[in-house]
Amino acid sequence: MNQTNQTLPISLPSRFSAGYGQGNLALAQINVSPGDLAGNARKIMAALRMAEQQVVDLVIFPELALMGYPPRDVIVRHPFLVAENLKWLAGIAESTNQTYALVGFVEPRLPKPSEKRIGKAAFNAAALLGEGKILAIFRKSLIPGYNEFEDYRQFESSPVSGAIAPEWLTDVNLHPPLQDGHGLITVHGHCYAVSICEDLWNDPEFFEHPRYPDNPIERLLSQRPEALINLSSSPSRSHKESVRHQLCSYVAKKYGTPLVYVNQVGTVDELSFGGASRAYDGQGQLFARAESFQEQLLVINPFKGQGSIAPLPGPQSADSPAAPTFQADDTTDLARTYQSLLQGIRDYFAKTGFQKAVLGLSGGLDSAVVAVLVADALGPENLLTVSMPSAITPEENRSDAQTIAENLGCPWVEIPIGSITAAFTQELSTVRASVEATWGPVDARSNAADNVQAISRATLLRQLGNEFRALPVATSDKSEFYLGYATVNGDMSGALAPIGDVCKTKVRALARWLNEHRPETVKTPKNVLPLSVITKPSGADLKRDPQTGELITAEAELMPYEFADEVIWRLKTLNQSHAQLLNTPFYYEQQHPLPSAQKAEWLDKFFDRMSKAVFKWFVAPPILMVEGGGSIAKSDYHHPIVANRIHWQGHSPAEIRAILAERNDC
Amino acid sequence: MNQTNQTLPISLPSRFSAGYGQGNLALAQINVSPGDLAGNARKIMAALRMAEQQVVDLVIFPELALMGYPPRDVIVRHPFLVAENLKWLAGIAESTNQTYALVGFVEPRLPKPSEKRIGKAAFNAAALLGEGKILAIFRKSLIPGYNEFEDYRQFESSPVSGAIAPEWLTDVNLHPPLQDGHGLITVHGHCYAVSICEDLWNDPEFFEHPRYPDNPIERLLSQRPEALINLSSSPSRSHKESVRHQLCSYVAKKYGTPLVYVNQVGTVDELSFGGASRAYDGQGQLFARAESFQEQLLVINPFKGQGSIAPLPGPQSADSPAAPTFQADDTTDLARTYQSLLQGIRDYFAKTGFQKAVLGLSGGLDSAVVAVLVADALGPENLLTVSMPSAITPEENRSDAQTIAENLGCPWVEIPIGSITAAFTQELSTVRASVEATWGPVDARSNAADNVQAISRATLLRQLGNEFRALPVATSDKSEFYLGYATVNGDMSGALAPIGDVCKTKVRALARWLNEHRPETVKTPKNVLPLSVITKPSGADLKRDPQTGELITAEAELMPYEFADEVIWRLKTLNQSHAQLLNTPFYYEQQHPLPSAQKAEWLDKFFDRMSKAVFKWFVAPPILMVEGGGSIAKSDYHHPIVANRIHWQGHSPAEIRAILAERNDC
Repeated sequence: MNQTNQTLPISLPSRFSAGYGQGNLALAQINVSPGDLAGNARKIMAALRMAEQQVVDLVIFPELALMGYPPRDVIVRHPFLVAENLKWLAGIAESTNQTYALVGFVEPRLPKPSEKRIGKAAFNAAALLGEGKILAIFRKSLIPGYNEFEDYRQFESSPVSGAIAPEWLTDVNLHPPLQDGHGLITVHGHCYAVSICEDLWNDPEFFEHPRYPDNPIERLLSQRPEALINLSSSPSRSHKESVRHQLCSYVAKKYGTPLVYVNQVGTVDELSFGGASRAYDGQGQLFARAESFQEQLLVINPFKGQGSIAPLPGPQSADSPAAPTFQADDTTDLARTYQSLLQGIRDYFAKTGFQKAVLGLSGGLDSAVVAVLVADALGPENLLTVSMPSAITPEENRSDAQTIAENLGCPWVEIPIGSITAAFTQELSTVRASVEATWGPVDARSNAADNVQAISRATLLRQLGNEFRALPVATSDKSEFYLGYATVNGDMSGALAPIGDVCKTKVRALARWLNEHRPETVKTPKNVLPLSVITKPSGADLKRDPQTGELITAEAELMPYEFADEVIWRLKTLNQSHAQLLNTPFYYEQQHPLPSAQKAEWLDKFFDRMSKAVFKWFVAPPILMVEGGGSIAKSDYHHPIVANRIHWQGHSPAEIRAILAERNDC
Repeated sequence: MNQTNQTLPISLPSRFSAGYGQGNLALAQINVSPGDLAGNARKIMAALRMAEQQVVDLVIFPELALMGYPPRDVIVRHPFLVAENLKWLAGIAESTNQTYALVGFVEPRLPKPSEKRIGKAAFNAAALLGEGKILAIFRKSLIPGYNEFEDYRQFESSPVSGAIAPEWLTDVNLHPPLQDGHGLITVHGHCYAVSICEDLWNDPEFFEHPRYPDNPIERLLSQRPEALINLSSSPSRSHKESVRHQLCSYVAKKYGTPLVYVNQVGTVDELSFGGASRAYDGQGQLFARAESFQEQLLVINPFKGQGSIAPLPGPQSADSPAAPTFQADDTTDLARTYQSLLQGIRDYFAKTGFQKAVLGLSGGLDSAVVAVLVADALGPENLLTVSMPSAITPEENRSDAQTIAENLGCPWVEIPIGSITAAFTQELSTVRASVEATWGPVDARSNAADNVQAISRATLLRQLGNEFRALPVATSDKSEFYLGYATVNGDMSGALAPIGDVCKTKVRALARWLNEHRPETVKTPKNVLPLSVITKPSGADLKRDPQTGELITAEAELMPYEFADEVIWRLKTLNQSHAQLLNTPFYYEQQHPLPSAQKAEWLDKFFDRMSKAVFKWFVAPPILMVEGGGSIAKSDYHHPIVANRIHWQGHSPAEIRAILAERNDC
């Protein structure tokens, strides 16, 4: 995140012949921050100068590289930012020479004085810059508004695809010599079509359900450019890589036209962009691909098929299909998950201006995995791990926590919480009788005594964070969020929830993977986590069974995580209803005998707890999205808190008739 | 929220002549919950039976009345709900007789087996039901996706406006005898056009910036129906009422056609629907209007101009313009604010299944106003007020808190927090040296010792809430949210933030208003709040000045609230930039001498604090939206947390050139 003297790792084709007019292109896969115009412009300039040194025809930046994607509503509420981004664009244009640049920016919609503006105030656009000028503009046509995408809130759909020369260009005192007039551009003798992100993702044959009636690519490629360029800021999610590859390959082959795809890296709150910019030849063959989750300048030649192919993270093949079955220990994309989470943690801290983290280390699975991730992302010296035992904390957990901290090389302190929870208990006891006199006896289901432990721990972490300019990190996982098994202002509280989109069974698989596959550069590459941490039953360690004296495990209170996680998987992958879940054999049932009454009870409990968990989703910190769907991150999924009386089991027509016929006096 | 034997207050025209064919219509302004199909259907049936008893031709329900608006992404992730809502619709249709009904519902998009579905899976639709059948369907064309609206995430835009008979109607075994075939419907001899919410809000002459190129109303009314019906679920926000009135009147007059407008009441999380369903004659004259913020069945006759007009809340005239200037004590819509907040609190508790609330009463302004609102909404016996003094809490604040509780008739307890914060302090002190040995000395700007007081208070409230099934209520106001002057897990934490969209100066005006204007039915209608609570300087009461020993006020730490609130007002109303704010004389400056250096310092501080406050917005509880704009509620405004390096002051072209020319080594 240094802002001057920047450099990018560069990758050149093995037999690279520099010089203008050869069709050499640079794919500038950079990490930008929304609204940080100066910082983003510096990165753009650094890549531009590097590309000029390589004497390439054109350097291509990701979607909205100048403003940073996604800008969200900031550009709506603060239109001055859009005016500013035009000034920066003009400045960058002035700095260009023979190496042209395609730069994503926010284009204000400026109708003539006699005309009314109809629709939103801006286009999601890109500009061709070169020889000191802004030469052409390209506007996004397909404006997504689903899942993590909200372009529709800010950007008007452009009816025109391809290069145009809008009137405002004269305002910046630059003269557009747009030559082709057919939506294509010619740069050093080569003719390109330019598109932005979603415009590529609507092929009516490739997709089962195209999202839009329009296909801008068809229009662009009917003009027969030599290559198609796409500027993207496309989030990385599990198994999306194979769709991305197949789509790009399909489009290149379908039109017999090389495809050059430039994607952003870096994380913006909950959204992680994976990079892996790439190029395909006219037969749909991949011939170049940049690194994943790293800034890079990848130089390629689409006409000679020249470029280098960086591997994708881990064993996941580029064309592996989405997991067709639920596997509790799905390991196909753990390496991608690891890299994505590392980038997410690193960027969140760097972009908010923090270097250090504090984390409660319980000796349980979730906090252990989060500790490894944060230590690897920020450096172990920047993670303060805190053990906060209560009277019921098993000695094994305390020693496991210490072992993890020592293995990682993190600072570690222990703060018993007994005196704190005792103070709460004592003060509450002085008023309880008075409240009971008014409101009746305490609710037998109250878990206030459990929760106060989790909240006291989170409070200590927040105080330590405040005193030492460190961010506290939340440890709740996706299964816990679905089941509402997390304490508000407690374990689910913090500045960031790194594994909030990773189900418990996958957290366990990730723990095993971490023990084997961390990079050799870290202090303890192998077996950083004691086996006991991975195998012990999960639980909040907040109460003991009054009969047995044993700590109550989460699965005893809830249901087996393997079952719950399969429900989550079926909801997201198959959109199954309660009835379908009940009547479809689970993979879980192949391993474990499961009476149908038990299955029904667990399903009822799952949906009931999920309905009540929505408030917790609403106040959760940012959750790094890594899974292919079904996240409860606020950027991804909106569920009204008061929508908690959904009858998930459904009604038969006869039941409906009976309910409607009930007497309703007027 | 009782679910059987329901009844609605009914309003009949003064000279009402019952009987079919006379053009009598019933506007069923009901309060529904998203996803609660059985509950919503029961309400619909109750209104239908009442309308039948009045022998009206047609009863009209709000937009999406059956599913509940807004359903948000629930219907995308759980498509079974859409299938269920069709079953309920069929059941209601079977129950109809001679009184027809217009019922909003979610229509699945079901292409023929040979066709691919293009676009989203559902329409936002309404059905005409009558004589036991589904007779016609109407689909929304204009799909909003701005501010609090997110229909675009779930609903496809319909190219067709007006009545249609889709093929799936045969699936429910009902035969559509759609007669007019021109998008109009005929009910008991009268011919109507039917539109849904946003379709009405795009008149190209009325609006300075129409949001859509299309105007469905023009198409519908070119067929010359006798009246235009609009089914709405339109949130209530400050000064929107005058726009609503002017638009409806304009459209009715423009086309010389009576307009019948039915609006939802009730609150869904952050969105409050105000009701006030109404009808205009063909000259644009209002002749009927239902109550605001109350369920009601309003019977009207658009052909005879018959109906009654309920007053809007308070002195606000229906055609008062939006406040043209900033007034710190703007009182024009305090009555509406009060009713909107009361509905919001009442509905949030009722729909989440809670009757009781707990609130920390500090003796300060915000908690005092929230106490009155919650007591009025839930009944004083259902609000436990808790005074939680620390060693630095002034005695005056403790006694003021007690006075308020006594005036309201709320249960009140006192819990000193000294022993709790001492326990935190003690435990932290045992590890601080160890952490300092690794990370260096404690940050001098740390406010951990202040925050732990606020967090301890919130924890006690949460525990009491847990023990007695009561929800804790947050007290942060809009000015504090903008300035980040709120403690995470502390005063800004809770199940709901009732005044999170009310600026401090307006909270103060509301306090004075409450002292005068509460309904006579409450225990202490007048002067419930001691004058000292209203006039004392605001502050968090978390620390004293080490020199003077005085409590540090918020305005001393920040800036005058009247100044900050004018900035918020100028941002939302005028979209002014930092530079414009600096160079435009404030209303504040008419009252107070303000050197330009001081103004610049406050502006810098405002934007700096706002940039860092965004995380707090992200984890805030639901905020009841009441203002006309500029809220930081998550349903309304999205700002990336990491977008905190915006250079609000902007750069000149020369500065930009200099930055871009900085040496960037490669």
